[in-house]
Amino acid sequence: MTRLIDSLSTTDALAELFSDHSMLQAMLTFEVALARVEARRKIIPKSAAEEIAKAARPDAMDVSSMVQETRLSATPGVPLVKALTQLVRTKNPVAAGYVHWGATSQDACDTALVLLLKRAQPILESDLLRLEKLLRRLADQHGQTVMPGRTLLQAAGPITFGLKVAGWLAAIHRGHIRLKASFQESLLLQLGGATGTLAALGKDGIQIGKDLAKELGLNYPEAPWHAHRDRLANLLCSCGVLAGSLGKMARDISLLMQAEVAEAAERTGPGRGGSSSMPHKANPAGCTQALAAINGVPGMVSAFLSAMVQEQERAVGGWQSEWPIVAGVIQRTGLAVAAMAEAAEGLTINPARMRANLDATRGVIFAEKATMLLAGKIGRDAARKLVEEAVRRSSDEQRRFRSILSEMPEVRKHLDAAALRNLESPQQYLGVADEFRKRLVDSTKDSKES
Amino acid sequence: MTRLIDSLSTTDALAELFSDHSMLQAMLTFEVALARVEARRKIIPKSAAEEIAKAARPDAMDVSSMVQETRLSATPGVPLVKALTQLVRTKNPVAAGYVHWGATSQDACDTALVLLLKRAQPILESDLLRLEKLLRRLADQHGQTVMPGRTLLQAAGPITFGLKVAGWLAAIHRGHIRLKASFQESLLLQLGGATGTLAALGKDGIQIGKDLAKELGLNYPEAPWHAHRDRLANLLCSCGVLAGSLGKMARDISLLMQAEVAEAAERTGPGRGGSSSMPHKANPAGCTQALAAINGVPGMVSAFLSAMVQEQERAVGGWQSEWPIVAGVIQRTGLAVAAMAEAAEGLTINPARMRANLDATRGVIFAEKATMLLAGKIGRDAARKLVEEAVRRSSDEQRRFRSILSEMPEVRKHLDAAALRNLESPQQYLGVADEFRKRLVDSTKDSKES
Amino acid sequence: MTRLIDSLSTTDALAELFSDHSMLQAMLTFEVALARVEARRKIIPKSAAEEIAKAARPDAMDVSSMVQETRLSATPGVPLVKALTQLVRTKNPVAAGYVHWGATSQDACDTALVLLLKRAQPILESDLLRLEKLLRRLADQHGQTVMPGRTLLQAAGPITFGLKVAGWLAAIHRGHIRLKASFQESLLLQLGGATGTLAALGKDGIQIGKDLAKELGLNYPEAPWHAHRDRLANLLCSCGVLAGSLGKMARDISLLMQAEVAEAAERTGPGRGGSSSMPHKANPAGCTQALAAINGVPGMVSAFLSAMVQEQERAVGGWQSEWPIVAGVIQRTGLAVAAMAEAAEGLTINPARMRANLDATRGVIFAEKATMLLAGKIGRDAARKLVEEAVRRSSDEQRRFRSILSEMPEVRKHLDAAALRNLESPQQYLGVADEFRKRLVDSTKDSKES
Amino acid sequence: MTRLIDSLSTTDALAELFSDHSMLQAMLTFEVALARVEARRKIIPKSAAEEIAKAARPDAMDVSSMVQETRLSATPGVPLVKALTQLVRTKNPVAAGYVHWGATSQDACDTALVLLLKRAQPILESDLLRLEKLLRRLADQHGQTVMPGRTLLQAAGPITFGLKVAGWLAAIHRGHIRLKASFQESLLLQLGGATGTLAALGKDGIQIGKDLAKELGLNYPEAPWHAHRDRLANLLCSCGVLAGSLGKMARDISLLMQAEVAEAAERTGPGRGGSSSMPHKANPAGCTQALAAINGVPGMVSAFLSAMVQEQERAVGGWQSEWPIVAGVIQRTGLAVAAMAEAAEGLTINPARMRANLDATRGVIFAEKATMLLAGKIGRDAARKLVEEAVRRSSDEQRRFRSILSEMPEVRKHLDAAALRNLESPQQYLGVADEFRKRLVDSTKDSKES
Repeated sequence: MTRLIDSLSTTDALAELFSDHSMLQAMLTFEVALARVEARRKIIPKSAAEEIAKAARPDAMDVSSMVQETRLSATPGVPLVKALTQLVRTKNPVAAGYVHWGATSQDACDTALVLLLKRAQPILESDLLRLEKLLRRLADQHGQTVMPGRTLLQAAGPITFGLKVAGWLAAIHRGHIRLKASFQESLLLQLGGATGTLAALGKDGIQIGKDLAKELGLNYPEAPWHAHRDRLANLLCSCGVLAGSLGKMARDISLLMQAEVAEAAERTGPGRGGSSSMPHKANPAGCTQALAAINGVPGMVSAFLSAMVQEQERAVGGWQSEWPIVAGVIQRTGLAVAAMAEAAEGLTINPARMRANLDATRGVIFAEKATMLLAGKIGRDAARKLVEEAVRRSSDEQRRFRSILSEMPEVRKHLDAAALRNLESPQQYLGVADEFRKRLVDSTKDSKES
Repeated sequence: MTRLIDSLSTTDALAELFSDHSMLQAMLTFEVALARVEARRKIIPKSAAEEIAKAARPDAMDVSSMVQETRLSATPGVPLVKALTQLVRTKNPVAAGYVHWGATSQDACDTALVLLLKRAQPILESDLLRLEKLLRRLADQHGQTVMPGRTLLQAAGPITFGLKVAGWLAAIHRGHIRLKASFQESLLLQLGGATGTLAALGKDGIQIGKDLAKELGLNYPEAPWHAHRDRLANLLCSCGVLAGSLGKMARDISLLMQAEVAEAAERTGPGRGGSSSMPHKANPAGCTQALAAINGVPGMVSAFLSAMVQEQERAVGGWQSEWPIVAGVIQRTGLAVAAMAEAAEGLTINPARMRANLDATRGVIFAEKATMLLAGKIGRDAARKLVEEAVRRSSDEQRRFRSILSEMPEVRKHLDAAALRNLESPQQYLGVADEFRKRLVDSTKDSKES
Repeated sequence: MTRLIDSLSTTDALAELFSDHSMLQAMLTFEVALARVEARRKIIPKSAAEEIAKAARPDAMDVSSMVQETRLSATPGVPLVKALTQLVRTKNPVAAGYVHWGATSQDACDTALVLLLKRAQPILESDLLRLEKLLRRLADQHGQTVMPGRTLLQAAGPITFGLKVAGWLAAIHRGHIRLKASFQESLLLQLGGATGTLAALGKDGIQIGKDLAKELGLNYPEAPWHAHRDRLANLLCSCGVLAGSLGKMARDISLLMQAEVAEAAERTGPGRGGSSSMPHKANPAGCTQALAAINGVPGMVSAFLSAMVQEQERAVGGWQSEWPIVAGVIQRTGLAVAAMAEAAEGLTINPARMRANLDATRGVIFAEKATMLLAGKIGRDAARKLVEEAVRRSSDEQRRFRSILSEMPEVRKHLDAAALRNLESPQQYLGVADEFRKRLVDSTKDSKES
Repeated sequence: MTRLIDSLSTTDALAELFSDHSMLQAMLTFEVALARVEARRKIIPKSAAEEIAKAARPDAMDVSSMVQETRLSATPGVPLVKALTQLVRTKNPVAAGYVHWGATSQDACDTALVLLLKRAQPILESDLLRLEKLLRRLADQHGQTVMPGRTLLQAAGPITFGLKVAGWLAAIHRGHIRLKASFQESLLLQLGGATGTLAALGKDGIQIGKDLAKELGLNYPEAPWHAHRDRLANLLCSCGVLAGSLGKMARDISLLMQAEVAEAAERTGPGRGGSSSMPHKANPAGCTQALAAINGVPGMVSAFLSAMVQEQERAVGGWQSEWPIVAGVIQRTGLAVAAMAEAAEGLTINPARMRANLDATRGVIFAEKATMLLAGKIGRDAARKLVEEAVRRSSDEQRRFRSILSEMPEVRKHLDAAALRNLESPQQYLGVADEFRKRLVDSTKDSKES
């Protein structure tokens, strides 16, 4: 189902969700439910509703000509209603007159989009739950796995891999919570008729609307939202923020996978992470998928936000631009979640290499620690001066930092052999890393897990 | 305080908030509170904390050289700490050694930003409350003021101005609620030390952090968030969504103010809405301000989202790009709120012109209604055919729609004189406009109002 | 071919261009030409090249599994080469060993994209030429058609419709010229092998590259551009700028089509511009298409620009995100051009209504003129004061501006009856509108026209 | 002059360019030149022009109240003209009447912006020339410096550092050429009067315009461009594309500077690249500046492109949003250029480490080469199978690739000892790297260099 060009911007399940068949089905679901509800309230004949339900088959519709007519009328709702009416008419001309009764084309289009979003939510959330579970496990396993922290891509003091994972986890979890709330807020019926007053339904409008929302499993809003797109905008923003957190995790892993760092590796295997020219490559395929997918998201979010400035009761262009943008953001976010779940599942960690990379700094990453130890004795200015001298010599002479320090009389005066021995122990310079790790993991415990 | 170039992208209060003095003050507030808290916990001498507090004056700092050093060190935190240390040193060299004890420059920068956001919140919210109050009043006053609905900028069936206003109001109110929640989530202390473990503070890190958060009136997070920017991203998104809703209102009003429409007008007056070349102009100055301000917002939101993909424990570029982007979004959103409050306050509505514009359509906007009335009798296909013929003739002959209809035998058979007389009564074709209006207004009643 | 969801974001021809079949064909065209060129230079056997050419049929490939493998390898090049090799192998196992000889998957993907862009260029350009020709005609026809200028959506002094059209034309023409140059710059072979040195081809690399470029009708660059995407970025920017100019035209026309303005109308007809609920509507369908299409463009341009920051010799994510973004921008721009050509072709202008809208201002749009006339006599301050008074009275009393002026003694002293009579003649207050119109039209005469 | 918040988003020179004083000066330069030109053509008195010139001093103006009035009138042009008029009036009331004669406020604002852009051009270009010169030198010095190519951040076959630098250089040079052309196209006078017809200047409009352009050192366009912003858009796009190429270079260098890679280093020194908490850090300060600066650029470019859809003869919001966006893009691009010139100047290269990193791959990066060598003998499928086996064993056993190969009988049959010895020689697997390097460098030779 996924087009080749979209391989790295959607999952198959989400590509299917926005396929012609699925979109037609969603619009037809709206029309059938509308007819059914109106029949129940005796606004249209029961038989008409039945005929409409029978005729409403996506396969009976000619997408190619609907596309043309969508352009001519600037909305897919018009040809949809026309095609459905035509299908009904061949069976029952009277019933055909009751298709789409009292609604406008935006009602069908917007509600269809919402129905699709309702189906997108569990797809994204189940991958999120899987990812979070995997990350919780990793964070727990690696609470004591020390590694270099890295700031501005330079080695800094030690952290634990568990803390790093817990950071990813908590951010993704917060993104998940926001996403869930945004979906919740957005899963609303749109039914407003031509100008949002439901004038064609007289005084029954709200009752019909409530019935229809119930029939479709959607919430009923205070009023139609045909020109107010803030809830969809907020949903896309939630995707954008989540995508950012997924991208951060992907960026981190791809950096840890560099040959020169080699602290982590995605699973490789037949066809996975390979290269057409280089048989030795073990590429960060999951991270690449995720980063490729999310690359388009911020721009699409901004496109939607720009389009919110919609004219009066229905926009010229703003509204009509939304479908592919919403679908694009949802699909890209979904692929990023799936790819990172896949990456997390197959992730191999190399604690020995982490330790070796720490050691390879010759101890200079403990310069802050040495400064703090000395500062208590001789003041920070003096301490910093001594330490900077030792760092410089460690680099020039390619010798360990503590060896240099141990040769400096001013240092020996204040730090004894034991202190110097412990100086470069990463385990003794982790501060409250593990408390932070636990607090982060605990903050994610509200996710449902099977 | 506002620079000329920023006249249409900030308010004075928000420009002041991000001024040199204010930013220095915020960073110094962090440093002073940190020292105070550390002194209280006996980590540094009490006298050092006092000296630090005394020295921490923005006016004593040389912004110009701090800017240079910010570039050299790629963070404003480094020169800030250096300058403060220097100021303390001139009074008390020992105390100077305790400046910024255990913290890293990002701690000072991020917490300073949060302190400024905390001050931005009431500025935005008070204008939002004012705007919402004005809109509630307008929505109530104009519950029965009929006007043409407009879709794709074409005249459609009637709505009420009250319903239109209620739509603006509810969207802005939802934006307000989201903004408040996003601020709430974001007002967190950042204190992580060099790599986010608070290693330099040993086992006291979390306690110091909690004390410091309390001292600064901020919440304490599960862990430092130096590399996880989702909460700020979400705050900017909330601004982006709110800005979109404000822009929609501004767009609508500017369209209603067109000479040919003339249904609404912003207040004019000395210097307001004028033109340097055209003495007669009465420009939509508030709407223009709002639209100018928000124009940059979606792109800035996307910049922030893109920058979330931050490397390891501190990014190369992503983090360092945030300050002006956050400030840009907050200031633009703030100006848009202020401008729309101003516009709403001075808004003049012209119900007679609304009615005249309805009438000028010669009744063809009731084509839907006529179709629905006839469809019940002769089926929709036949009804639509008759109505389309009448619409065409109304246009060709420039005569009223109902006059044409009344001459069509097929129509007269089914619609009596009374039905035709009422056909073009907008009040009788408002559906549930007023219920929707009330539901929208009611949904905003949780805002605190004085 | 166009998917329903993309109805308002592509044309059929451009949708076809980025279809699975077309993309496979383009990649296979690269592989076949590569083999052919290598055979000619005796790097691979002639028979292998022939087998490869025979096997390279898109229809023989399983897109669905290629999509899966694209995700696993994070590039569509890997499964393409694998599938082609497999197809060749079934016929001739030896020949299979020569598929993709010396190239890397990015070479196939990038060159395929360029081959598609080469086909996109005439599609966009032929619609552009058509649009420019129509606009030139309109600009010539309406050189004397006066209408109100409008600034900030308020009536201002008179312009001609011809000048307005000439403004659209010249901007679109400049966009066309830039687009053409950007295409020209971008239509380059990509052939670099694994790391951009063509190491696997030994010393023949550049010769093979030149042959291959010639074979494919592309230019040969100084070097492979696998990690330098500025030329594609510039192409997308050119689309973005052109889209902006098309959107400006669409926005203008949709505003002129408002019922209350009614100075222009797009062609209506069966299915065109209609509404599912409102039989009377004549929507700006072409403008809506164009505005919907271009709405996504700026965000996509920004996504591509952000992705330019690609790591070393091949990016992690940045490169892999490009295909749908490039295709999205090209398709949207193409639809906008086509839609505006369509709109221009069917555009009806209503000079009488333009004149009536000018008159409806009661002459106050000539306030600038009156000021200028009086300023020469009594100084501008005094003149402006008088004129503002007259404007105010004209509005309050709903009387013509010149009638008010003619009653003001201070005015009568300086302006005689003839001057006042002519004051409100739009033809006499057009300045150099027609010279500007001609200069604009002349600046576009370099477009080839049949 | 630079504000603290903008430290990483502008240079001092460019901050100064968009300061209040500079912007006022630019607008006043327009007004003075207009008056002078009009006096020369006897449209206004010579004495008025002289008074205007004398009064036009930025320091005499109250920016704070101009900001307020800019908001009220939604353009800075209105208060500028008012303030200038007031200053002239105190000296000569008659002359005051001739301020801004025949122009509109947008004329002053747009032309002022262009005058500032004209001054920005040499600032950016001189840093570009410096950067290009440094890169040319580096590319020449390192034509034979081998290093690992890296794709998807994984080690790939060898390249030369000279080739990498030449790639940066050529892309930046192309960006420079585009930028120069965009500036050239944009440096146009704007003079259109109220609606773009110069009606207030009668038949003299074009002559005045030409004189004024000449006076200001600008080109004269075909017509006013008040509502057509494509040339500015294109200038911003050129900045965006150049920024992307600068960011690519910065990203590459920051990756090469990682402790574990250590192939390059920016200059460190007092205050440069340091950390407030970690005395040992040598951060990529120039790269960070550049990446921070350009992070906001794509979003700002998209904001400008979105704003191009401007209404009729002057937009509501679109136009008024431009100033800070144009300034933001120019300043960020300027800082990125300056920062990369600085980084390039102090860049230290470590060829030994490059070689060591190549060696540390145990030769598996020559897997492609081994495959190609064997493929000629036994077919590629068989070759790839053997090589994959050898790669796997090299990894499992942590032994050199060629040692493994030399133990494989099937390999020994086809590759003799010499072939195996040479297999891992990077110099012998550089393909046409050096020809590409030279071609790239040569393509940049058109830049003027002193």
